[in-house]
Amino acid sequence: MVYRWCREGENRPDTDGWRLSLYKLIFEADSPYGKYFDVTLIATIVLSVVVVMLDSVHSIKSIHHETLYLAELIFTALFTIEYFLRIISVKSKKRYATSFFGIIDLLAIIPTYLSMLLPGSQYLLIIRILRLLRIFRVLKLVQYLSEAEILVQALKDSSKKITVFTFTVLNLVIILGSLMYVIEGEQNGFTSIPRSIFWAITTLTTVGYGDLVPVTALGQAMASVVMLLGYSIIAVPTGIVTHSIINRSMAAMPVEIAEETKDVALNIVCNNCGLQGHDTDAYYCKYCGAKL
Amino acid sequence: MVYRWCREGENRPDTDGWRLSLYKLIFEADSPYGKYFDVTLIATIVLSVVVVMLDSVHSIKSIHHETLYLAELIFTALFTIEYFLRIISVKSKKRYATSFFGIIDLLAIIPTYLSMLLPGSQYLLIIRILRLLRIFRVLKLVQYLSEAEILVQALKDSSKKITVFTFTVLNLVIILGSLMYVIEGEQNGFTSIPRSIFWAITTLTTVGYGDLVPVTALGQAMASVVMLLGYSIIAVPTGIVTHSIINRSMAAMPVEIAEETKDVALNIVCNNCGLQGHDTDAYYCKYCGAKL
Amino acid sequence: MVYRWCREGENRPDTDGWRLSLYKLIFEADSPYGKYFDVTLIATIVLSVVVVMLDSVHSIKSIHHETLYLAELIFTALFTIEYFLRIISVKSKKRYATSFFGIIDLLAIIPTYLSMLLPGSQYLLIIRILRLLRIFRVLKLVQYLSEAEILVQALKDSSKKITVFTFTVLNLVIILGSLMYVIEGEQNGFTSIPRSIFWAITTLTTVGYGDLVPVTALGQAMASVVMLLGYSIIAVPTGIVTHSIINRSMAAMPVEIAEETKDVALNIVCNNCGLQGHDTDAYYCKYCGAKL
Amino acid sequence: MVYRWCREGENRPDTDGWRLSLYKLIFEADSPYGKYFDVTLIATIVLSVVVVMLDSVHSIKSIHHETLYLAELIFTALFTIEYFLRIISVKSKKRYATSFFGIIDLLAIIPTYLSMLLPGSQYLLIIRILRLLRIFRVLKLVQYLSEAEILVQALKDSSKKITVFTFTVLNLVIILGSLMYVIEGEQNGFTSIPRSIFWAITTLTTVGYGDLVPVTALGQAMASVVMLLGYSIIAVPTGIVTHSIINRSMAAMPVEIAEETKDVALNIVCNNCGLQGHDTDAYYCKYCGAKL
Repeated sequence: MVYRWCREGENRPDTDGWRLSLYKLIFEADSPYGKYFDVTLIATIVLSVVVVMLDSVHSIKSIHHETLYLAELIFTALFTIEYFLRIISVKSKKRYATSFFGIIDLLAIIPTYLSMLLPGSQYLLIIRILRLLRIFRVLKLVQYLSEAEILVQALKDSSKKITVFTFTVLNLVIILGSLMYVIEGEQNGFTSIPRSIFWAITTLTTVGYGDLVPVTALGQAMASVVMLLGYSIIAVPTGIVTHSIINRSMAAMPVEIAEETKDVALNIVCNNCGLQGHDTDAYYCKYCGAKL
Repeated sequence: MVYRWCREGENRPDTDGWRLSLYKLIFEADSPYGKYFDVTLIATIVLSVVVVMLDSVHSIKSIHHETLYLAELIFTALFTIEYFLRIISVKSKKRYATSFFGIIDLLAIIPTYLSMLLPGSQYLLIIRILRLLRIFRVLKLVQYLSEAEILVQALKDSSKKITVFTFTVLNLVIILGSLMYVIEGEQNGFTSIPRSIFWAITTLTTVGYGDLVPVTALGQAMASVVMLLGYSIIAVPTGIVTHSIINRSMAAMPVEIAEETKDVALNIVCNNCGLQGHDTDAYYCKYCGAKL
Repeated sequence: MVYRWCREGENRPDTDGWRLSLYKLIFEADSPYGKYFDVTLIATIVLSVVVVMLDSVHSIKSIHHETLYLAELIFTALFTIEYFLRIISVKSKKRYATSFFGIIDLLAIIPTYLSMLLPGSQYLLIIRILRLLRIFRVLKLVQYLSEAEILVQALKDSSKKITVFTFTVLNLVIILGSLMYVIEGEQNGFTSIPRSIFWAITTLTTVGYGDLVPVTALGQAMASVVMLLGYSIIAVPTGIVTHSIINRSMAAMPVEIAEETKDVALNIVCNNCGLQGHDTDAYYCKYCGAKL
Repeated sequence: MVYRWCREGENRPDTDGWRLSLYKLIFEADSPYGKYFDVTLIATIVLSVVVVMLDSVHSIKSIHHETLYLAELIFTALFTIEYFLRIISVKSKKRYATSFFGIIDLLAIIPTYLSMLLPGSQYLLIIRILRLLRIFRVLKLVQYLSEAEILVQALKDSSKKITVFTFTVLNLVIILGSLMYVIEGEQNGFTSIPRSIFWAITTLTTVGYGDLVPVTALGQAMASVVMLLGYSIIAVPTGIVTHSIINRSMAAMPVEIAEETKDVALNIVCNNCGLQGHDTDAYYCKYCGAKL
């Protein structure tokens, strides 16, 4: 999945010309110019995210708001130009526009225009941070991608078990929260069932804000059960994921090593057909039948 | 265990007739009508749970209380009718009434009638949420059930280890809580031993509400020990469950898949020498060189 | 280790007589009277612990203090008599007195006498709860003991790794706490280095009381690092213990199952020497050389 | 890596004389004097750290400040002399000065001199605690070092997966924090995006200070998602590290033990048929029946 996001190369224009040059510059990091472009892009993204963050801090906004707003406009203009250049250079416009990065690239510029109609929405610009995922391509961190691949696959493998677990936990917090609402009641802060369910989630996940704490003896006994439950059942997703990672890592082992564990003598080559992969106990080539 | 809950089919009436038709409609999801029934049921359950929740929120209750109360009465009436239809259609009334879902179905209607005598008990209607477990049958999520099966089995396998662990933790919090009561004393909020034990559970499970915090130097040192202990011993149930899940998942692997991972075609027998153990990509017997 | 605690039988008097009868009554649970004794003992321990707890609750103490104090005196008297009966009946007095349960039995009566000199120390009576560990013998939960054995062994195996880990964590919280003291300073509640170290432990173990929260930007950045660190390094003890439990459980597997995993055909018996344990690919007995 | 820190022995002066004697005294713990030196050093380090801590506690500082300041000056003087003795005695001054312990030894004396210019910096003296890592050499805890080695290697093995995981978590908290800022707004305490990101980290890592709690329904729903996410994804680093520790521990097993688990004597070759793979308890070849 992760790989697919990055195989943007498949959208390369077929014919030579300025479109291909543009494509190479924007989408590929092999040429020096392509690399400069990517590094500049990443720096710009980080800068623009910092600007959005700073603009939300009162003490900074009150002094530098106009500078920050100008910077935001410039960044959005740059990203808009970049988006259109990307659209122009690719072979299939639709394919890029509906790809993971195509959508992120668009979402990274919309909030500025939206904020002219809907004040406050400019903070959604923070989604630009997702564009940083391109960093893996620039830094040629293909190894990191394959590690990410293993993690994603491991999570996929265990998705059914995790769904069952999440469904159970959700049922649990709804029932426990409602019980707590009946036990503690509104006079102790458990003012509604949704509020009590929020408390149950807070307690079961061991977050424990402490804005709402049971005060009756029965409520504290109940809370103790919830806490011990939360402390114990965290073992379940951990067990599931650990099992998946162990399985996946073994599956992702390089072929030579995996072969070795399969008791295959790699150095045995058939003199007749030249193929390898014979078992250590083989007397005849399994492909052509010649004596080894 | 999970499977058994769902094998309600074994309670099917033997003779044809309206009882069997009713049974098929209510208990089975194979026929189109049966499916419509189940989907409607699930939607009704979700709706009725939402109504109970909303009725507990002050701002909503003050305006819409009568509407919500009417809705609750209608839902309870529907579920009561449904419960009697279930009772009528099954072969063995007792068997259904004492089954997991039979009890849940009954508990899902009692609180409304009870609330006429005991105000406030209608919030227990939230137990209706458990009826949602039927969702697995409707959606034909048999795969999810077998995953749940593995989880339940893994927890069962490690139940003895978990009992020992829980017993140890309970002893620990009682002793630590009492020590803290002696150390901090009532002037710092540790007003009684049960209260201090509640604090110890809160701290050991890393929930940490913060409603009660040690202030003396000795108390803080003691609390540090409890926190580090809680942070470390969570590794024990995790280790136990991880081990069980790894064991169970290996045991639950279908035979074909287990064989496949060995990539050896066990059913291929050499006609010449009669030996097995050839790889799936073998054309010739590796022992005698004959064509397979 | 756990087993040893319970092998009190080795301290049985050699000669028949009233001492042996007394020993059987008190230390063994095989005879009906021995079982009655143990069940009564456990009930008494639970009751006496409950009395200590209740006596610490203000609202109860103010009304029933005299009843509770009387109950405490009676329980202590009973346990004192029991302690002397144990001392009398065993073969080696010293061996019992220095054993795990011998020390616990003594500690369970001392606080009452001590509280006459040192008011408040009677709450230490809560240590009586440890006497409940005898419950395993009474309930013949030998299986639970062997499970406990595996857990204890697994923890012992990983004790060196855990020592290294704890040493690292201690160094970490001392340095992080001191840094936070310098960053946040006394005006924000970080009034001393020990106080800041307590905060660092609270945060690293993800307990998070919230009685002390960084307010400066640098302090919050630092706290974020501590939290993410704590969130991640909990994986280390979990990994260590999981590994140990997997190892230990395999070592504790009954021989027949362990053999099976070793690819040994148990049903093959040598006709010549009658020994088993031959590999599945063996043609000749490995012990006597006869054809299988 | 850990080993390298301790192999200071390689910096031993070649020629006999007072420099070698000094080196043996300071850097080695084999001779009685060397051991006395190390034990004294460790005690001095612990004492000096305690002095720094006490000096930060108001109630103690107000009375004993002058004594503590004097003690600090003496400790710094001693450590300065020790540092120069170390510099003098080693073969390569540069090598020691740039080694892990060389840097720590220097950092352990600088803050006192710095505090004459920059008041408050003397609390950085706490870094002296890192000098305690020498304790492993003194106590000859080489076994502990090899355990530490396994842990460090396991963490190194999984560093790529952990980098990917940390990068994902950082992206997550930035986006979740910003969303929360938009949802809850400044009136509920989420005064800026950095503040909201701090809240997101607090919640995701299940620390949950409770200084900032969502109050709107949407905010609480959002917070519930963050909490359940944090509760679940902690399984990922745990799974990664567990997998690495299992792998590393197997790799670190001495060869003899690894062989033993296979219980096959690889070096035993049948003199008759030349085949290997006999069990260690075999007297006869299992393939041809000849005496081994």
